[in-house]
Amino acid sequence: MTAYAELMAFQRETEALAQVMGRLGWDQETVMPPGAAPQRAEEMAALEAVLHARRTDPRLGDWLAAAVAEDEVAAGNLRILQRSYERHCKVPARLAAEIARVTSRAQGIWAEARAAEDVGAFLPVLSEVVALRREEGAAIADGGDPYDALLDDHEPGARSADLAAMFARLRPRLVALRAAMRAAPPAPVLRGPFAEETQMTLAREVATVFGYDFARGRLDKAVHPFSSGSGLDVRITTRTNPEDPFNCLYATIHEVGHATYEQNVDPAHRLTPVGQGASMGVHESQSRLYENQLGRSRAFAGWLYGRMRDLFGDFGIASEEAFYRAVNAVRDGHIRTEADEVQYNLHIMLRFDLEQALMRGDLAVADLEAAWNDRFLADFGFAVERPSQGMLQDVHWSVGLFGYFPTYALGNVYAGCLHAALRAAVPDLDACLARGEAGPAVAWLRERVHRHGALRPPRETVAAAAGREPDEGPLLAYLEEKFGALAGG
Amino acid sequence: MTAYAELMAFQRETEALAQVMGRLGWDQETVMPPGAAPQRAEEMAALEAVLHARRTDPRLGDWLAAAVAEDEVAAGNLRILQRSYERHCKVPARLAAEIARVTSRAQGIWAEARAAEDVGAFLPVLSEVVALRREEGAAIADGGDPYDALLDDHEPGARSADLAAMFARLRPRLVALRAAMRAAPPAPVLRGPFAEETQMTLAREVATVFGYDFARGRLDKAVHPFSSGSGLDVRITTRTNPEDPFNCLYATIHEVGHATYEQNVDPAHRLTPVGQGASMGVHESQSRLYENQLGRSRAFAGWLYGRMRDLFGDFGIASEEAFYRAVNAVRDGHIRTEADEVQYNLHIMLRFDLEQALMRGDLAVADLEAAWNDRFLADFGFAVERPSQGMLQDVHWSVGLFGYFPTYALGNVYAGCLHAALRAAVPDLDACLARGEAGPAVAWLRERVHRHGALRPPRETVAAAAGREPDEGPLLAYLEEKFGALAGG
Repeated sequence: MTAYAELMAFQRETEALAQVMGRLGWDQETVMPPGAAPQRAEEMAALEAVLHARRTDPRLGDWLAAAVAEDEVAAGNLRILQRSYERHCKVPARLAAEIARVTSRAQGIWAEARAAEDVGAFLPVLSEVVALRREEGAAIADGGDPYDALLDDHEPGARSADLAAMFARLRPRLVALRAAMRAAPPAPVLRGPFAEETQMTLAREVATVFGYDFARGRLDKAVHPFSSGSGLDVRITTRTNPEDPFNCLYATIHEVGHATYEQNVDPAHRLTPVGQGASMGVHESQSRLYENQLGRSRAFAGWLYGRMRDLFGDFGIASEEAFYRAVNAVRDGHIRTEADEVQYNLHIMLRFDLEQALMRGDLAVADLEAAWNDRFLADFGFAVERPSQGMLQDVHWSVGLFGYFPTYALGNVYAGCLHAALRAAVPDLDACLARGEAGPAVAWLRERVHRHGALRPPRETVAAAAGREPDEGPLLAYLEEKFGALAGG
Repeated sequence: MTAYAELMAFQRETEALAQVMGRLGWDQETVMPPGAAPQRAEEMAALEAVLHARRTDPRLGDWLAAAVAEDEVAAGNLRILQRSYERHCKVPARLAAEIARVTSRAQGIWAEARAAEDVGAFLPVLSEVVALRREEGAAIADGGDPYDALLDDHEPGARSADLAAMFARLRPRLVALRAAMRAAPPAPVLRGPFAEETQMTLAREVATVFGYDFARGRLDKAVHPFSSGSGLDVRITTRTNPEDPFNCLYATIHEVGHATYEQNVDPAHRLTPVGQGASMGVHESQSRLYENQLGRSRAFAGWLYGRMRDLFGDFGIASEEAFYRAVNAVRDGHIRTEADEVQYNLHIMLRFDLEQALMRGDLAVADLEAAWNDRFLADFGFAVERPSQGMLQDVHWSVGLFGYFPTYALGNVYAGCLHAALRAAVPDLDACLARGEAGPAVAWLRERVHRHGALRPPRETVAAAAGREPDEGPLLAYLEEKFGALAGG
């Protein structure tokens, strides 16, 4: 056996165990009995210890030193494993265990603090998390920037300076679009209620339209929608609100974007490093493209309006055009996950700047709430009234995810590039979407993006698929055309 | 840290990982997408390899040699760990891996062969499984009897000679009872259909009656009912048949017997060796006692009849007495899992004799079908017409479970002893059951059996609870009184 073959045999078991860990997470959010939580924490900690030991196993170093990449696939696997091994070895086992222990506890404290609107209850553990992640970032950065080290974990190759420059170009044009939409007549509002079982039936239909394979997945309800798993078992969740069917339907389309990316990776790569999405940013480009550029298009909105009329009867919207305006409403709001295409990236920029300041020691945890609220008022023009609308709204920081938020915005930018290329490649896309057919779009994405998995680094993946170096240009052009027309009407 | 403390810290992680393995099994049988099966096999194999490495970790030997039992709990944990470590070390890693590989494949082949009624398709892999288990039994027995070595794995301390003697005492009296019941008028038959959702509603109610805690568990449907997990997450499954509500209800009560045993173990023992049922036989004693001695009693049948009338209206049974006869029908049949209290142990004796002959080399796999069919005709008086009624009906041998079947019969015997003691301790038990209250019975079992987990060896567990050395006497007395009356009526 060659060193590469030995390495891959070992790694295949690691990947299988990582899938098991993902399955435990799915179980916890969907079907786990409430009283099982303390035991589940022990189960996940035990499995995490196994995974950590495998990811820092000294044999990996030997195999990596001896392995020869005989083709593109081997080169991709070695690139990812080399990077992972180096990163994991830089973090002392004591620190890794401490981060796992504290963030597990912090998530529960955050959830209670958010429910109680009590920032003070969250600050002590957040201070611990920030300190631990700063230490980790410094260990990985090895003299470089600790925030970039964490960002690189979610988006290999990304640099905060590049992102900051991109955001600086995005911001004024998004602000202008936002002002135009706020000055325009308000979007129509749907009249509920919408039976939750019927919403789920339609969600299943829509998932199938967007290429989700139920033979290798399932759709359940969870408090927060997510996609989980790779290869032959990729599950998604959504949620229902009787007054707002878009909550269920667009969350489903979003998660189908993530899930089909995983389902469509070349089966030869299953349970190998290249056998999953290239990065968080590329993953988000798929979910956002499905949800927004396709799912909120005029053509697809027309089809969806017909299906909803079939299933729910009259819900107070008189035409396809009015329905299209309803699914693209731009309204004032505090919550990132409920934001429209125009405002979403502004929510990200706020978090990006604050978390950089936290990681670089320029902002104390004690001052975070004031900093958030000041910035929100300046950016959005109205105040945060309670912490659950502000710094307690997202789970990310409680679980130590710093450097993750910008990948959402990067996903939007990548989606803009891919969407432009897709439109050029599939000229009759709107005619298909108007008939409830997303097949040609899914086929193009499968061929250009999905099947390659993580074979290439993230930017290269998008560049190869879109036929250009990715930047914010196509996203801005798309948004200005779409929302310019909506604001003008 | 003492050697014992180090051992237990290590073991706690192993127990947590074993719970994860159990959860994967639950997932596979209830919610897993059909196309995920090949990947799931890899996930379970990877986790099994982790567990095997931990169970044979040389540090265990050092800790066990140095550990001192300072109390009864430590003595129990060390007894179980010493035994497990010795057994696992006697089986070469190559053989353990081969057994895992072949039995995983054999189960699929068995399922297909059963569906196709094709014994020939199953025999080659069964031969492999038999050969591997014989080799394993010989390795563990170390010159002793290989079948006893396997039996001891499921029922520590049990010996096939003792079981054979016990069966010899049981057999003639069960055969006589069976003859009396076959000569009596047939039991009444329910008139369906019974809405499956309503069956599940009643199953949930019945589970609660028998003390199942839904905050630490859940009830789902599966092809084969089972209970899975220990500690804070013990899940059960059942199945529904629109024509036969007893299939759902009594499977639920049976699994609740297993599940409450696990749920009621002293929480201080969670994720330790003593923190689960004492053996397969003791486990089965709980499920059978719940299902039969309590669930099929005249008193509980009266209550259940009332609830079924409330939920299903008239289903062709005119009285509590007739309903009691219906739940205790003794009918000719080929299938062990559908057998009544009188005939069940006869099905076990057949398997016990055949699997001993297989393991000792006295019966060739090629001759198994003829041996089964001859024996069935002799024991039951009618022929096996197709293999799914005969040697292909049970999954056990395909997954290498030899020495497992007799634990079912031992469970019945243990249940007989515990039931007699329970009746003496709770004189108004029938009055409670007639009101749909099993609380006093569950409380007695919790105190006498459940909370101790595996603190003592199986026979000692039953002897301490029942106040006598267990034998078949109480079971026979119970069956002869109950079915004597039913046959006489």
